[in-house]
Amino acid sequence: MTPTYSNLFPKFIALKSISTDPQFHSDIEKTATWLGEQFHKHGFEYKIVKGYENPIVLATYTVNPQAQTVLIYGHYDVQPAQKEDGWDSDPFTVTEREGRLFARGAVDNKGQILIHMSTVFDLIIEGKLRYNVIFLIEGNEETGSPRLSDFIRDHQDVLKKADFALISDGETTGGHPTLDVGFRGVINLQITLTTSDRELHSGLFGGVVPNAAQELSGLLGRLVDNKHEVTIPGFYDDAKPIDAELRKETQAFPIPQEEMLSLSGCSTLFVEPQANFFTKNGLLPTLEITGITTGYAGEGFKNSIPSVAVAKINIRTAPKQDPWKQCETIVSYIRSQIPSYAKIEIIQDQISSGILLNHIHEYFMRAKTIMKDVYGKAPVLKLCGATLPIANDFDKILHIPQIYASIGNEDCKMHAANENYSLEFLNKGLEFSRAFLQKE
Amino acid sequence: MTPTYSNLFPKFIALKSISTDPQFHSDIEKTATWLGEQFHKHGFEYKIVKGYENPIVLATYTVNPQAQTVLIYGHYDVQPAQKEDGWDSDPFTVTEREGRLFARGAVDNKGQILIHMSTVFDLIIEGKLRYNVIFLIEGNEETGSPRLSDFIRDHQDVLKKADFALISDGETTGGHPTLDVGFRGVINLQITLTTSDRELHSGLFGGVVPNAAQELSGLLGRLVDNKHEVTIPGFYDDAKPIDAELRKETQAFPIPQEEMLSLSGCSTLFVEPQANFFTKNGLLPTLEITGITTGYAGEGFKNSIPSVAVAKINIRTAPKQDPWKQCETIVSYIRSQIPSYAKIEIIQDQISSGILLNHIHEYFMRAKTIMKDVYGKAPVLKLCGATLPIANDFDKILHIPQIYASIGNEDCKMHAANENYSLEFLNKGLEFSRAFLQKE
Repeated sequence: MTPTYSNLFPKFIALKSISTDPQFHSDIEKTATWLGEQFHKHGFEYKIVKGYENPIVLATYTVNPQAQTVLIYGHYDVQPAQKEDGWDSDPFTVTEREGRLFARGAVDNKGQILIHMSTVFDLIIEGKLRYNVIFLIEGNEETGSPRLSDFIRDHQDVLKKADFALISDGETTGGHPTLDVGFRGVINLQITLTTSDRELHSGLFGGVVPNAAQELSGLLGRLVDNKHEVTIPGFYDDAKPIDAELRKETQAFPIPQEEMLSLSGCSTLFVEPQANFFTKNGLLPTLEITGITTGYAGEGFKNSIPSVAVAKINIRTAPKQDPWKQCETIVSYIRSQIPSYAKIEIIQDQISSGILLNHIHEYFMRAKTIMKDVYGKAPVLKLCGATLPIANDFDKILHIPQIYASIGNEDCKMHAANENYSLEFLNKGLEFSRAFLQKE
Repeated sequence: MTPTYSNLFPKFIALKSISTDPQFHSDIEKTATWLGEQFHKHGFEYKIVKGYENPIVLATYTVNPQAQTVLIYGHYDVQPAQKEDGWDSDPFTVTEREGRLFARGAVDNKGQILIHMSTVFDLIIEGKLRYNVIFLIEGNEETGSPRLSDFIRDHQDVLKKADFALISDGETTGGHPTLDVGFRGVINLQITLTTSDRELHSGLFGGVVPNAAQELSGLLGRLVDNKHEVTIPGFYDDAKPIDAELRKETQAFPIPQEEMLSLSGCSTLFVEPQANFFTKNGLLPTLEITGITTGYAGEGFKNSIPSVAVAKINIRTAPKQDPWKQCETIVSYIRSQIPSYAKIEIIQDQISSGILLNHIHEYFMRAKTIMKDVYGKAPVLKLCGATLPIANDFDKILHIPQIYASIGNEDCKMHAANENYSLEFLNKGLEFSRAFLQKE
């Protein structure tokens, strides 16, 4: 660790900036103020912007008006943590054990954003900073960044000065440095199917009346065929084409399937021999039932025919698909499958686009090369199957290329007890950050 | 009401013989004792038999060794009831309002068994009793009569003296007097399907791993086709043939479909134009999903792929099917449908046979004729879709014909708040009981 990092890290961690629990609101405020002070000390202009949920810290440093500008995004808020949750030490006191620093936020995201902060601070002092820098550090990532799009839209004048963005908020994959090059979009649906206004005795009415659980199972069962493909017409439209070069790079993904299989706890993965986990998971749309509730759930049996059945469904859209259009297609198909004797109500939520990032711009190439030097192996270009709304906001509002350089260790336990940053990965992260942000 | 009935009814009702709640155990004991006393007063020999869960009252009266003997079955236990549950008057104090007697047990089964008890008492006094009588009154009907088969098996010496059995524990149908002539069997299954030992992020793993909710929906969805027929090979074996005469009688069922539709709260019934509700529901086996639990059930969404999914299924077998054989057929079919990457656990419970009752024996014919006289309309011969294990026990162990004469009013709200016996139906019940049990 560098002296700057080891000085600031325990102080940053000690601030209980838990955004998911309103009782920590004053700690949130203190954290934003503390961040502002660090930027101020190092000659940044900064604003603590209120009015978009928790305060957002926006700090800019101009090393040279002719230099290129990097926008570095991170978040200072963390998930809840209590010693009783299974922590071996106080979650808000950094504790070193067996080559790891244990603390809530150690990796997600205090530990990672502080790497870039402390590197920039050091490079300023040393007169070696390569880029002008804009830090955007928010306090609502753990609650879904509900107002961040608005903030970005309202602060385009500052943010658009950036030539590219650098984000470090994830883990390496299989011990390899990782550059994310794609994220899927998301659609959440809740389907409520009703066949009667009352539950009915399964003996006295069984076989003669509609059964909401049966109708819902039939519907859900028909949505996926025995090749695990979604049967909704149009579901795969605009999804399949993919840049040959990227396909080649992601195909060459150095993580053995066995490792992903072991991570899944399953006995098989639905990946064809010629594809790989990340190509399939990152590039194809999928439909997953995430919950079904109907009828009696207790011990033993209650022999009633359910009149209401509810399913929650999570759809991930391919990076090139329009999730709002897909949602329309899916919802109208589902409606068309419901017999006239059943009523259906569908709630749509959390719709967000996917994206395939530009992975051949100069900054990306530079990050790739430096990572290879620092880690001694080429980074994996990962098509991430999850959804990152900020990637879209930066793309659609700021129109700038982005680098998602995940530098946390894979076993960091983010969101869980004993979150930790491996010193080996932390030092590699500092090394990468310095090499990337310093002048030649 | 007769004086005997109106004297005993409030006393019987006041005894809180709730079998589903152990705190009422002493009330259960008191009720059995009270019943014994009533039989004793009227010259019965009686035993209060312990060792089969709650005490069973067995009382016999011999009017004449040459006379035929009727076994009258009933139960003295009731469902729980508290004023706060929505009762308009104290549930254990008989209260008359608008031509009805309100009380817990008014119809189920104190009110009905007391009709036959008080009639027999009166006929003894008047010297007009037609049959020797055995009363078997149990205290665990509301908890599923778990030891009644054993009791019947162990007391065959007494019970087999009966030439036939008379049971009144149900409601009329559509205002018509009702004679049940069939009951279906039952099989309960709980299926637990497991695809992993952990829940997985629907973005990071969606589309690449098995989903327990999806696999279960697929399985359940395929069990019934779009004609509402069960697809399991052998499911309908031994089910279809039915006695032409009975079919004709039950076809002529005087309850309009609209009435059953309205009772169901559904917008349609799955009954072909040439069939009727009770023929289909009473004679064909059915499979109903009674509960599904998997994944996240709370507000909003948790985007995890479920690793475990549980379904509860209630199967009703046709009267002529062997439910143990059917269970084997169904379970092995379900197992055969599970892909190798999923684990399945199946619990079987509450298996019991259905039965088609002999509806042409002399006692049945006599009940039918008397009912027509008393009620002014022919009784409906109902193929009841529910399951009555006692019908099987009497058939298989005692080998005697049975009469299921339901004499409660259809809107009696048994098991619910404001259970009530309509005075009109109560008096018709008394009239039928006297006509049936008295000498010509």
